[in-house]
Amino acid sequence: MEILRHQFLDKLPEIEKAIKECDVIAIDTELSGLHRPLATKRLYSLQERYEEYKEATERFVIIQFGLCTFTWDSAGRYIAKPFNFYIFPTSATGTVHTNRLFMTQAQAFDFLVKQSFDFNKWVYQGIPYLTREEEELHRKEAARRMKDDIPDIPLDDKEVPFMQNVRKMIDEWLGDSQRGEGVNIVAKNAYQRRLVYQEVRNKYEDLTAIGMQGFIRVTKLTKEQQETRMKERLEKIERDCTFAVGFRKVIDMISESGKMIVGHNMLLDVSHMIGQFVQPLPDTLEEFKTLAHKLFPNMIDTKYMCAVEPELYKIFGTATALEQLRFETSREAFTNPRIDMHPLFPRYLTEKAHEAGYDAFMTGSAFLKLASYLEQLRYPLDKIAEEPRVERKPKVDKSSDDEQDNWYEDGEDEEVYNYGSTRVNLFLDTHTVHPALKNSLNKSVLVRSAFDCFDFVNDEIVINQTTAFHVQSVSGHLDMDKAKEVFIKAGKHVLERYDSSTCFLVFEQIPQHFNLEQYKDEFIITPVAQYYENMNTPPSK
Amino acid sequence: MEILRHQFLDKLPEIEKAIKECDVIAIDTELSGLHRPLATKRLYSLQERYEEYKEATERFVIIQFGLCTFTWDSAGRYIAKPFNFYIFPTSATGTVHTNRLFMTQAQAFDFLVKQSFDFNKWVYQGIPYLTREEEELHRKEAARRMKDDIPDIPLDDKEVPFMQNVRKMIDEWLGDSQRGEGVNIVAKNAYQRRLVYQEVRNKYEDLTAIGMQGFIRVTKLTKEQQETRMKERLEKIERDCTFAVGFRKVIDMISESGKMIVGHNMLLDVSHMIGQFVQPLPDTLEEFKTLAHKLFPNMIDTKYMCAVEPELYKIFGTATALEQLRFETSREAFTNPRIDMHPLFPRYLTEKAHEAGYDAFMTGSAFLKLASYLEQLRYPLDKIAEEPRVERKPKVDKSSDDEQDNWYEDGEDEEVYNYGSTRVNLFLDTHTVHPALKNSLNKSVLVRSAFDCFDFVNDEIVINQTTAFHVQSVSGHLDMDKAKEVFIKAGKHVLERYDSSTCFLVFEQIPQHFNLEQYKDEFIITPVAQYYENMNTPPSK
Repeated sequence: MEILRHQFLDKLPEIEKAIKECDVIAIDTELSGLHRPLATKRLYSLQERYEEYKEATERFVIIQFGLCTFTWDSAGRYIAKPFNFYIFPTSATGTVHTNRLFMTQAQAFDFLVKQSFDFNKWVYQGIPYLTREEEELHRKEAARRMKDDIPDIPLDDKEVPFMQNVRKMIDEWLGDSQRGEGVNIVAKNAYQRRLVYQEVRNKYEDLTAIGMQGFIRVTKLTKEQQETRMKERLEKIERDCTFAVGFRKVIDMISESGKMIVGHNMLLDVSHMIGQFVQPLPDTLEEFKTLAHKLFPNMIDTKYMCAVEPELYKIFGTATALEQLRFETSREAFTNPRIDMHPLFPRYLTEKAHEAGYDAFMTGSAFLKLASYLEQLRYPLDKIAEEPRVERKPKVDKSSDDEQDNWYEDGEDEEVYNYGSTRVNLFLDTHTVHPALKNSLNKSVLVRSAFDCFDFVNDEIVINQTTAFHVQSVSGHLDMDKAKEVFIKAGKHVLERYDSSTCFLVFEQIPQHFNLEQYKDEFIITPVAQYYENMNTPPSK
Repeated sequence: MEILRHQFLDKLPEIEKAIKECDVIAIDTELSGLHRPLATKRLYSLQERYEEYKEATERFVIIQFGLCTFTWDSAGRYIAKPFNFYIFPTSATGTVHTNRLFMTQAQAFDFLVKQSFDFNKWVYQGIPYLTREEEELHRKEAARRMKDDIPDIPLDDKEVPFMQNVRKMIDEWLGDSQRGEGVNIVAKNAYQRRLVYQEVRNKYEDLTAIGMQGFIRVTKLTKEQQETRMKERLEKIERDCTFAVGFRKVIDMISESGKMIVGHNMLLDVSHMIGQFVQPLPDTLEEFKTLAHKLFPNMIDTKYMCAVEPELYKIFGTATALEQLRFETSREAFTNPRIDMHPLFPRYLTEKAHEAGYDAFMTGSAFLKLASYLEQLRYPLDKIAEEPRVERKPKVDKSSDDEQDNWYEDGEDEEVYNYGSTRVNLFLDTHTVHPALKNSLNKSVLVRSAFDCFDFVNDEIVINQTTAFHVQSVSGHLDMDKAKEVFIKAGKHVLERYDSSTCFLVFEQIPQHFNLEQYKDEFIITPVAQYYENMNTPPSK
C-alpha cells in the first residue's frame, strides 16, 4: 500500500493497527546516497566505521521507507501488509518551516532509475518529519508566536513612505465615524507584511492585524472574537505540527511496539532511521548501541542469520543478497509457513524489487521461512502443524470496528480453509527469544571488517583473519617502498598505509614459515585479530 | 525546445548554430538549493559575500539551465530560440564514472513543485557534464586503462577455489587441440571479473580477456584482431568522453562566442555556471572577477539595468522581479523591437514561468526592449525604423545548409512582411558597447549589501548608506546590552554584532544632531560607507 503525503494522517490508524496486531515487522529503506567505505580501507576499527555511518546519516536521507507487518491468522498462515512511504522533508504546507539540506549521490539516483523510482512522487508526495527535538522547538516557537513575542525588525529607508501610508490608512479608518469592519492593507512582500504586523502590535494596541489572501486586514475584535481567533490559531498550530511530525510517528509506533524488527543488512537502515527521525546519532559507538537497543530491543538481520547459522550457510554460502534469499526460500524446503498478502494490499502481487515496501515484504517473508526452517530442524517437536482442513467459520460480529480487515468474511457461512502451516516461535517469554533465533538476535552483518558482525548489545568478536597483520615501523617512520621490498619475499600481498608509522599487511595466502620475529629489527608485526583486541581493550582496563 | 539526455549530442549542432548566429544570449538557471545569506547579516564585506557564493556553488547544483538566443532577421525583428536543459550528473551510461555528491535544499524543491518541475525528467533525462579538469583526468585514466596499467588487487581467501577453476578452464582450453574460439568464464561480481582480467594479464600474456554480456571470454587474438579491438576501444572512449563532457560543451560555446550574455539578478547564475561546468571557483574575489570576465566578457543584468538607469527606475521603482519586467515591457512604450518565437520552438507560445528556458526568453526579451527604450530616449537619431511593408523575398538558395531555419521560406515567391521594428545597437565596435548600455555592462545587482552592485571588472562603490555605522568598542570588548542602552537614546535602531569588539548600528532614521564624537570615550563610530572604503583600501596601498 503506497502511502502518499495527502493521505498520511488519514492512514495512520491503519498503520497503527497493523503494527499493534502483528508478529513481525520488516523494514527497508532507499537512501539519497550510500555510505561507501573507501575500497582500500578494509581494516578499520569499529569506532571509525561507526563514525562513517554517523556521517552518512548526517549527509544522506531516507527517501523511501518500506514497512511490512506479518500477522498470524486463525487460518494457519501469516497475513502480510506491506506499506511503502516516500519521505521528503517538505515545508510547503503548514507553518512549520524547517530548512533542510541533504546530500544526494548521483550514482544512488542512477541506481534508483534502474528500479523505475518515481522522483516526482518523492518530491510532490513525500511525507515530512520532525525529530523529537525539532518538534519541541517548533512547539516552543509556535507558543512564542501566539504571544506575539517576536523581535522588531528595522524599517528600511525605502519603506518609510509605505509605512507612512499604512499609518494614514489606519488612522483615517479609526477616525471615520461610519467606518467598515476594517481597513485592508496590501503589502508587496514578506518584509512589508512584517512591518505592518509590527506597527499594529506596537502602535495600535487594541487593533488586530489578520493576514488574508493578498492583503492584511487591520480591525478591532470583540473579546469573544479574539478568543475564537486564538482558539483557531491554536488548532491550526496543532494540526500543522501533527502533519510536520509526520513519518516520525510511524518510527515511534515501531519502537513502542517492542516487536521483532527484521531487516536485510540492516545496520545502515537502523542508523538512518534513528539519525533522521529520532535524534542525531551520538558520538560514540557505545552510546549508539545503547540508544538503538533501547529503541528497537529485538532486531534480526536476515543476511547475518544466513551467515551465522551453519544449516543456512550450507544452503546460501556467501550468496546472501536479498534476491538470492527470495529465490532460495521459494523452494520446497521453505514452504512453511504460508504467507499471504492481505487482500487490501495488492500492490506487490506482482514483483517490484527495490521498492522499499516490496523489499521489506521479501525480507520479512524470508525471515519467517528461515526461522521456521531452523526451528523445524533443531526443535522438531515444537513444530507440529495441524493437517490442512476446511472449516465453517463462526459468524463475525458486524459491530466490530475491524470491518475493513474482515471484508472477506462478509458471507454468513463462509468456509475457512486452514492452510496447515505453523507459526514461528519468536519468543519464549517477553524477554527471551526462541533458542533458534538466539545467535542472530540484535546482530547485523558488517562487511569488509575484521569483525564477525555488528552487535547491538555486546562487544564484537574479531574474526581470526590469519592473513592480515598490523605492521609498525620500529624507527617511527614507515617507508612503504621499503616495506614492500621486504614483504614481497614472503609472498603476494597488499600493503595499506594506516598512518605515518604503521600499515596493514594482507597476504594472498599466509606464507609458509612466516615468522613475525624475523622482522623485529625493523617492524613490530601483530596479527590483526590481536591488534583489534588490544585496541578495544585499553591497557587501563 | 526541451533538450533531453538521449537527444543532446544530436542537438548540439543546432544549439551551436543558434549561438553563432545570434545577437544576444539570455540565460537562467534553476538550482538544487539557494544561497541564502543569514537574514540578520546585512552588512558584510564583499569577500565574505563572495565566499558564501563560492560555498553555494560547491554545495548546490544547477538542475535546469535555460538558454535563449535572439537573432535579428531580415524582416525587421528578433527571432528567439529558447532551449531548456535538465542537468543531472548521471554516470549511468558509458565508462565515465564520476561519483558526484550534491546538496538539496528541501525548500528549493518545494518551490519547484509550485512551478510543476518534472523531477523524473531531471534524473532520468538530465544531461551530465565534466569540468575541464575532470575531462583531462578522465582521458588520462582511459589512456592508462588502454595500456592495462592498473594495479593488481589481492586475492581473497574465499575466491581461491574460483580462481583455481578459472586457471583450470583456461589451461584445458589451451591444451585442447580441437579448441573453439575461446573459453567463457562466468564471474559472479565485479571483484571476480577483475580477478579474471588480472590473471589473464599477468599469467597468459598472449591471451586477451574480453568482457561480454554476463561472462568474460578468454581468447587468442591475431595481430589484426588486436588492432581492430584497440581501435574500437579508443572510439568507445572518445564517444563516452564526449557524452560525459556533456553540457559543459554548451557553456564553452557561450563563452567562446564572446556575445552579450543577459541574465536577471545573474551573479549567482554566473557563479554556478563557472563553478559547476568550468572549474571550482577561486579563493579570492579578485581571481573570480578575472575568471568570470575572461569567460563572459559582456554581461548585462536586467535587474541592475532597471535600478541604475534613471529612466527605467522611474518606471519600475524597486519592483524589478522578472514577472514585473515582463508585465511592464508588454506595454505600449516597449513595443520596439518586435520579438517572435522561431517557429520550430513552440514550447513557450504559452507561458511557463520559472522553467529556466522560459525565464531566459523573458529576460532576453525584456533586455532588448529596455535597451531599445533607452536608446530611443537618449539617442533618437540612432533609431529610425523603416516603415512596415510587405516585400517579395528573393528566392532562397536551396543548397543552403540552413534548410531547417528556412523551412518557412519554402514557397518560391513568398511574401515577407517587414515588421518595421529596429535592431538594438549593442556594440559600437568589438570592444565598445553602445553608450546606452555602458552603465549596466558587467555589473550585477547585489542585494542586502552596502554596495551599489557587483562589478565584474572594477572595484565596487559603497552606497552612501547614511543610517548605518560601524561601532568599535574602545575597551576591546563590546557589551551589546550596554551599547543598546547608549544608542536607544539617540533613536530607534538595530545592532548587529560583528565580532567580540565591534558591531553594526543601523538607525531607522538618522537621529538629528547625531554626533559621532559624543561617544568617543566608549566607541569609535564610523559611517559604514567609510568603513568599507577603509577595508577595501589596505593601509599599505
